[in-house]
Amino acid sequence: MTHPRPDMTPTDHAELALLLEVASTPKPGNVDRTRDHDDLRFEHFLAGAVGSRPGLAAAESDVAIGDAFDRAVDGMSHQEGGNTQFGCLLLLVPLVRTAARGDLSPEGVTSVVESTTVDDAAGFYRAFEHVDVAVDDPPAEADALDVRRGADAIPALREQGVTLADVMHLSADRDGNAREWTTGFERTFAAAERIAADEGPITDRLARIFLDLLAERPDTLVAVDHGMERAREVSRQAEAVRGDLAAAEDLAEKFHEAGINPGTTADLTAAAAFIALERGVRV
Amino acid sequence: MTHPRPDMTPTDHAELALLLEVASTPKPGNVDRTRDHDDLRFEHFLAGAVGSRPGLAAAESDVAIGDAFDRAVDGMSHQEGGNTQFGCLLLLVPLVRTAARGDLSPEGVTSVVESTTVDDAAGFYRAFEHVDVAVDDPPAEADALDVRRGADAIPALREQGVTLADVMHLSADRDGNAREWTTGFERTFAAAERIAADEGPITDRLARIFLDLLAERPDTLVAVDHGMERAREVSRQAEAVRGDLAAAEDLAEKFHEAGINPGTTADLTAAAAFIALERGVRV
Repeated sequence: MTHPRPDMTPTDHAELALLLEVASTPKPGNVDRTRDHDDLRFEHFLAGAVGSRPGLAAAESDVAIGDAFDRAVDGMSHQEGGNTQFGCLLLLVPLVRTAARGDLSPEGVTSVVESTTVDDAAGFYRAFEHVDVAVDDPPAEADALDVRRGADAIPALREQGVTLADVMHLSADRDGNAREWTTGFERTFAAAERIAADEGPITDRLARIFLDLLAERPDTLVAVDHGMERAREVSRQAEAVRGDLAAAEDLAEKFHEAGINPGTTADLTAAAAFIALERGVRV
Repeated sequence: MTHPRPDMTPTDHAELALLLEVASTPKPGNVDRTRDHDDLRFEHFLAGAVGSRPGLAAAESDVAIGDAFDRAVDGMSHQEGGNTQFGCLLLLVPLVRTAARGDLSPEGVTSVVESTTVDDAAGFYRAFEHVDVAVDDPPAEADALDVRRGADAIPALREQGVTLADVMHLSADRDGNAREWTTGFERTFAAAERIAADEGPITDRLARIFLDLLAERPDTLVAVDHGMERAREVSRQAEAVRGDLAAAEDLAEKFHEAGINPGTTADLTAAAAFIALERGVRV
């Protein structure tokens, strides 16, 4: 059934999308309803989702995007599992802002992205102070803007006049979330349409779209952790079980044992779930 | 670790308690992280928890308790699984109000209960209009106040001057949640202390306290559905696996097949989780 719920705000839907993403199973390699990692457990994602609400609500209001993201990550991080939903929030914050403006479309979110400022970039860098985030090395010429510098990179941002949209352009070729920022959230909107067209419980739909997304393009977090060749192999393995959640259970066991964590694909899944909920897919 | 989180409001903790309760497994007979019922699935509880927030926030503010409860149940009910957390909210709403007043104690919640009015009773009856709730027959002399009449019972409430505290007293001998209202939430506070004194992931602690509570007293929802003798037998079966979550997995299979749903014990577990979170138990 698809009829929008006027009683649910974009913040409510973003939080629910975070919850539904982690509840969907199997999502090979990720924490889900039936699998924990050693120190990163399901309940940490629940607490992360609730904790991120003030930042999501800030994104729904007129607080600067970078500050809203920093707040969302700060609130998310107050649980004992570490980084649960940094990447999800990087996608959800501009989408929540776009939904609040009443034009949740590729054009709408592109307008939000293009209006970001140097202050927004500073907020994004501050967010890295709250949790450890796995990222790749930046190009040598962008070393001063390495996100791992956190707030220490802010003077360089200001000196060079780098906006948050600029930061995302610098990373778009090696980070799947940054790529969404620079393409009008192309894959996210396409995935949302497929979730809406699919049938059955939304958690099964999200598990299926996760496999589709992973099969279609190498996961950039897997590439950071294990190299691009391995990330391509992971996508081929996902392709082989696409549409077959029972076969995906076996793949989940394999990825779990091998420490393969397609986290960027999970981020896209959560963001697509948000758009699907906003457009009226019911739980 | 127990240090309170000042960034989390009572509403946040109440929502997180709802999420943690359903995520805790095994909770024999209930929907949990690894078990769905046919038409009542895990994701319905996630949506119910998010949807209940405006009502919980009303309980945190100075909205009348009965109206806050009615709003919480209304918001909870906007998912396709039906009644997910009516009983949990009946316990959480007065506890959230009590926490917001800064005295989350048996005395504090008793003061909240004793200040309820006929209007609060009317709100409670209106809440039954949103979902089907399994309840026992009232005593013959209280037929006009049967909750299944919903808002139609409100004229009788007004005529007889029945407050919400009075309604709970009328049901206390056959409903475990009403009993908490009339005893300063005796079992809820005791369970919260045991959760805080326990060790390990909070979801394991909640699974253990659920078994303890079920072993200690027959579940009144099981009594409504299957009779008191069966409810006593269920408690004996819980006693036999108390403290042993592996053995409880087998019991969960048995109860699932037999349609045994100790829902009141799950309500107490969620309410105890709320108190534990407010007192600083970390996730």
